[in-house]
Amino acid sequence: MQYSFASRTAAMLASPVRHIRENARRHSFISLAEELPAQELFPVKLLEEAAHDVFGSGPDALQYGEPEGYFPLRAWLAGEWEQRKGVRLPPGQILLTTGSQQAIDLIVRLMVDERDPVLVENPTSPGCLQVLSMQGAQVVPVESDEEGVIPDKLEALMIRYRPKLFFATPTFANPTGSLWSAARRQEILDLCRHHQVLVVEDDSYGELHFKQKNESPDKSPHGQSRKFAEAYPSLFALDHAGQGGQVLYIGSFNKTIAPGLRTGWAAGPAPLIEGMYALKQLADMQSSTMNQRLLFQLLTRSRFQWHEHLAMLNKEYSTRLQLILELLKRPFWKDVTYHIPSGGMYVWVRLPDGLDSALLLKAALPKGVAFMPGALCAVGSEGASHIRLNFSHPGREQLLMGMNLIGETISEFTARS
Amino acid sequence: MQYSFASRTAAMLASPVRHIRENARRHSFISLAEELPAQELFPVKLLEEAAHDVFGSGPDALQYGEPEGYFPLRAWLAGEWEQRKGVRLPPGQILLTTGSQQAIDLIVRLMVDERDPVLVENPTSPGCLQVLSMQGAQVVPVESDEEGVIPDKLEALMIRYRPKLFFATPTFANPTGSLWSAARRQEILDLCRHHQVLVVEDDSYGELHFKQKNESPDKSPHGQSRKFAEAYPSLFALDHAGQGGQVLYIGSFNKTIAPGLRTGWAAGPAPLIEGMYALKQLADMQSSTMNQRLLFQLLTRSRFQWHEHLAMLNKEYSTRLQLILELLKRPFWKDVTYHIPSGGMYVWVRLPDGLDSALLLKAALPKGVAFMPGALCAVGSEGASHIRLNFSHPGREQLLMGMNLIGETISEFTARS
Repeated sequence: MQYSFASRTAAMLASPVRHIRENARRHSFISLAEELPAQELFPVKLLEEAAHDVFGSGPDALQYGEPEGYFPLRAWLAGEWEQRKGVRLPPGQILLTTGSQQAIDLIVRLMVDERDPVLVENPTSPGCLQVLSMQGAQVVPVESDEEGVIPDKLEALMIRYRPKLFFATPTFANPTGSLWSAARRQEILDLCRHHQVLVVEDDSYGELHFKQKNESPDKSPHGQSRKFAEAYPSLFALDHAGQGGQVLYIGSFNKTIAPGLRTGWAAGPAPLIEGMYALKQLADMQSSTMNQRLLFQLLTRSRFQWHEHLAMLNKEYSTRLQLILELLKRPFWKDVTYHIPSGGMYVWVRLPDGLDSALLLKAALPKGVAFMPGALCAVGSEGASHIRLNFSHPGREQLLMGMNLIGETISEFTARS
Repeated sequence: MQYSFASRTAAMLASPVRHIRENARRHSFISLAEELPAQELFPVKLLEEAAHDVFGSGPDALQYGEPEGYFPLRAWLAGEWEQRKGVRLPPGQILLTTGSQQAIDLIVRLMVDERDPVLVENPTSPGCLQVLSMQGAQVVPVESDEEGVIPDKLEALMIRYRPKLFFATPTFANPTGSLWSAARRQEILDLCRHHQVLVVEDDSYGELHFKQKNESPDKSPHGQSRKFAEAYPSLFALDHAGQGGQVLYIGSFNKTIAPGLRTGWAAGPAPLIEGMYALKQLADMQSSTMNQRLLFQLLTRSRFQWHEHLAMLNKEYSTRLQLILELLKRPFWKDVTYHIPSGGMYVWVRLPDGLDSALLLKAALPKGVAFMPGALCAVGSEGASHIRLNFSHPGREQLLMGMNLIGETISEFTARS
């Protein structure tokens, strides 16, 4: 029979991401398109021990639990915020989700009606743009400079569109890896407060900050992480952990511990968390209590050291970033431009003039390599001229070969013109 | 600040379910309102062993996996269908979800635009009604008799509304526990085919069938289950596992193995599974590969016996059903009516004339007991006169005390009138 889909699904169904992913399953295929952490750094052994303890505690861990998420894990998150970022956050204002993607979907379903204008730091994550398009939002891109979103531009758009929401990723945005300055953070928060626009702050990559060159080498992992949080406070922390009512914060363990645990969270003003909680029940009842208990066991009752783990991850990712930056200096890549990120998992590369990233992808796939075409990460024309390269997942050899193959493809295009 | 929610969220936020659940956390509280399986029957020990093996296999199990779900588990499901229900189903036409609730949410988001008419077997699960209301569907209830949905009524509504979807639960509906006759199943499927209406068949409770009195006692668990599938084929099986394109089938391990694994599935025509797959990625990227591997390990590489497990579950639930039926014979309950289900987890009870289930709940909560008020499970006035009682979760003592407390509350109302 013929099926008639809802009106807004058409664009979504045409996404090329599935095509990339199906290619990526071929054994020899190299994908720099994914949003994958390095699996060789997962704490597998400690999780196995944690699983032993969780299952050993009886069947409760396998039953439905609190739909808002396992309370001790929410309390742990609140404690972590207080200790490391100096802000108090009641566990009741935290909702555990399957990841940041689900948190984005829930807040958008909660607040956005068809044709509602929503401001978006541009470029932004493909997942965020898909959710907004599915909900029928009018997506309004906001321009940035090297310090972050540009206040004047943001304010003009707020006045013009009176949006309900502004999506921002001040710390290591997907795809750009950009980091807003401290001054800019406060300025933007003040503007949002003045114009009564809720900020949705996606901090999924916020823990992946690499050591600065001028940083003292003897700092402890905990000290490093605290220092970073002081230098670049999240908008949520500036808003006193949501007490100002201005920021909904989104975080995740999927990039820092392991995606298989499917655990992220939203934190913020009580009415929003309540609403997302109600929506989460209709979306999937609740996330896995079992997985949340596993995480809690790992974080608090095992030899696992959270801050040491982050420091290890960041050291390794920093090395991988150095490698991809080295590769970007090779001749194939001479006509591209990019900013060097100091955290996250991606480099956002501007292609040589006139080269379209979708066409480039089409030529690269048969060579056995993929990247994320910029159009999926951006509103407007900027996307077509950019590609997103992931450096966290591919091993050294893969990165080397993948970058060669993409570079070669670029040179084939530029040689022609 | 003031938050302005999307227009359709208001009704959802007023749901009394959270209130019931918060009460249920009080230690001495007895809830017959929940949709919980019996946790003392979870295969905890075998899952612990499976976890040991899964984590031991390396970090792959903790990485993002296939968004449509772990292939071997989908292939296992396909094999199970072929072996037990005699129908072939390509694993590519199965999407693993977090549970049946997510499958319902995805198909509704995929197909339903605001004000689209959707036919619903009435009463139906609270979760299904919430999803439809959130999507802005025009929910049209369809009446049933003791054999299932009434063909004439269904056809008249199909002609009048030309709906895209019809939600049905032919086997042990939540809340009624009703079971459609074999003839009625074919008749309804033929009607849907004739009028080109897609059936969404929620079979979440379909494995929970209790032994019939006339059944031969020496039948093996596998034989029992096969015999049941022959006597009461799912609409999906009658439609040749979706090859007819007429049925989207929804199933779940959450009620039969453990909800903490958060694994259910949708199976059906390729265009629908493709669309739900795309939507699932924007909803939460994917369900947990780790949990899916755990299940696969349990089902195929451990001492766990799936059909023996189901037989054990059904024997125990059948005993619990007998108990609640005994309790319903007590004097407090003399003015209620109900059908005796032969499977599932609920009894749907019609209250004495004039007694409103929401008022009854209000009076019952302070006594430390809850049930599901019928209005959450039904469209129209039928809900107010009914309550749903869960018999799978409470232990013997709890069921006894809970039923006494509810009965006492009923008698306080009826004594007054």
